[in-house]
Amino acid sequence: MRLNETELIRRLTCDLPRDSSVLTGPGDDCAVLDWSGSNLLFKTDAIVEGVHFERNTPPEAIGRKALARALSDIAAMAGTPTHALVTLGVHADMQPDLIEAVYQGLRDCALEHRVNIVGGETTTLPQLTLSVSLIGEATNPILRTGSKSGDAIFVSGELGGSLAGHHLDFTPRIKEAHWLANQDKVHAMIDLSDGLATDLRHLLTDQTGAELLTRALPIRRAAKERARDNPSGKTALLAALTDGEDYELLFTVAPNDAVSVLDGWKSVFPETPLHCIGKITDQPGIALRDDKGVKPLTLHGYDHLKQS
Amino acid sequence: MRLNETELIRRLTCDLPRDSSVLTGPGDDCAVLDWSGSNLLFKTDAIVEGVHFERNTPPEAIGRKALARALSDIAAMAGTPTHALVTLGVHADMQPDLIEAVYQGLRDCALEHRVNIVGGETTTLPQLTLSVSLIGEATNPILRTGSKSGDAIFVSGELGGSLAGHHLDFTPRIKEAHWLANQDKVHAMIDLSDGLATDLRHLLTDQTGAELLTRALPIRRAAKERARDNPSGKTALLAALTDGEDYELLFTVAPNDAVSVLDGWKSVFPETPLHCIGKITDQPGIALRDDKGVKPLTLHGYDHLKQS
Repeated sequence: MRLNETELIRRLTCDLPRDSSVLTGPGDDCAVLDWSGSNLLFKTDAIVEGVHFERNTPPEAIGRKALARALSDIAAMAGTPTHALVTLGVHADMQPDLIEAVYQGLRDCALEHRVNIVGGETTTLPQLTLSVSLIGEATNPILRTGSKSGDAIFVSGELGGSLAGHHLDFTPRIKEAHWLANQDKVHAMIDLSDGLATDLRHLLTDQTGAELLTRALPIRRAAKERARDNPSGKTALLAALTDGEDYELLFTVAPNDAVSVLDGWKSVFPETPLHCIGKITDQPGIALRDDKGVKPLTLHGYDHLKQS
Repeated sequence: MRLNETELIRRLTCDLPRDSSVLTGPGDDCAVLDWSGSNLLFKTDAIVEGVHFERNTPPEAIGRKALARALSDIAAMAGTPTHALVTLGVHADMQPDLIEAVYQGLRDCALEHRVNIVGGETTTLPQLTLSVSLIGEATNPILRTGSKSGDAIFVSGELGGSLAGHHLDFTPRIKEAHWLANQDKVHAMIDLSDGLATDLRHLLTDQTGAELLTRALPIRRAAKERARDNPSGKTALLAALTDGEDYELLFTVAPNDAVSVLDGWKSVFPETPLHCIGKITDQPGIALRDDKGVKPLTLHGYDHLKQS
């Protein structure tokens, strides 16, 4: 019997003991803890050779990605990352220069985002593995819970085809998330790592669903080119819905706030697309609306445990 | 070219950028951070199948060990552990019941020490791997630095032969460390994970050394039995000096405080041995004193990267 990652985590974390210091536990982008009156964010994320990068991926890009993924989770809660620990699992015969280059990519990313790397460890593993633990702070953390029927759904950037390059050079949307938190209009937010069709479900409840406008989905050029070059593979729309590693912000706001959020974003971040891609409904599940009508979406995105 | 873990970590972390919030960075048992005026401890530790446990190790014991090792690091700074994240690297074909049993051992240990497990993730790896990130708090953290020439060196518990069982059922010395911190007499402290001969060096500087009394070293029965059963292997003394995974406290106090610390400990923790095993000297390196005189110790303990 095999389990997917979501089911496994649910079984493992369903009734963990916790005290009143835990404001948000398992199931959001980060844990939120009450620490001396501040909101401490706590997150861990690992990348593994053969799953999240290849043996021939440039080593600096591997290090950068390891930290940037965790930064994206801090961004999803409108937090500010502060301190990181790095666990490096290396082959015993790996060249020290290669390991140092991986670490250099990590350090450069940390410097760029003013994150202190304060320790970690090395261990021996058959596949190069980087696990980053990150803490940060959020004045007003934005959670995955809180969307309401009728909310407009927004997504930053573009979707799909990330493996052509975006997954190695994306920018965690930290400053955009801070701006959103300051607007105080976002009901719920998540960063897209496992694909829109999977991650959007984390913003829904048993009583709510989402209706996406297929023509509104911003599809990355790489996804379109791949679909064109490989007619028997995923369509560009399917790639935008199910490819992982977009590392974009997905959030909802009340319909009355949609225009002001969109206009404000465009004036502050003119280089970063923001699209309204649909709405939260009171019909559970995800539906796609196109010129021909509405149909349910049953496809899911990326599931880590199924990739091996 | 191969590096050992200590050299590699030194190269990777030698000039990391950090701001004033980092009170203690890489090189101690935990990082110590100034967080809203409190001392936040931050630590990560991983265990890997085939290195830290075997495929037939009872799963609950694996989970317990993963957390208890990190707790031992928090203890070494006289801290109180509070919140943990758990990264599980599992084989895609592992039975869910086995994974749940591993997690159950972890949960039981967390409950015992009032640690909140607040999240984590699962990923796919060819060897079962558990990486635990832990935060905690310390009113008066005790660092590795601070020992002075003339200090008495103490060790809790017994040393050597841990792989016969101790490494799966040790108790992190949290309450003992709290008691020591309250005495306000300890100059420097570390937990023994890589063997006395290796870890003691972390308490020394370029200007100081240590002289150990071979007859004073508390040797675990398992180490003595193994030496007796395998005359061509390690002597019991060598095992006490170089075996890893003791998870005991090693600390120094001024010579004038040695008797009061020993007497106080024995009255508060009558079940837990405490031994004075030598002194800090102004002769760099570690020396062993026995009936025949003093000789230098050049052996090191366990080095993770050399075990693969």
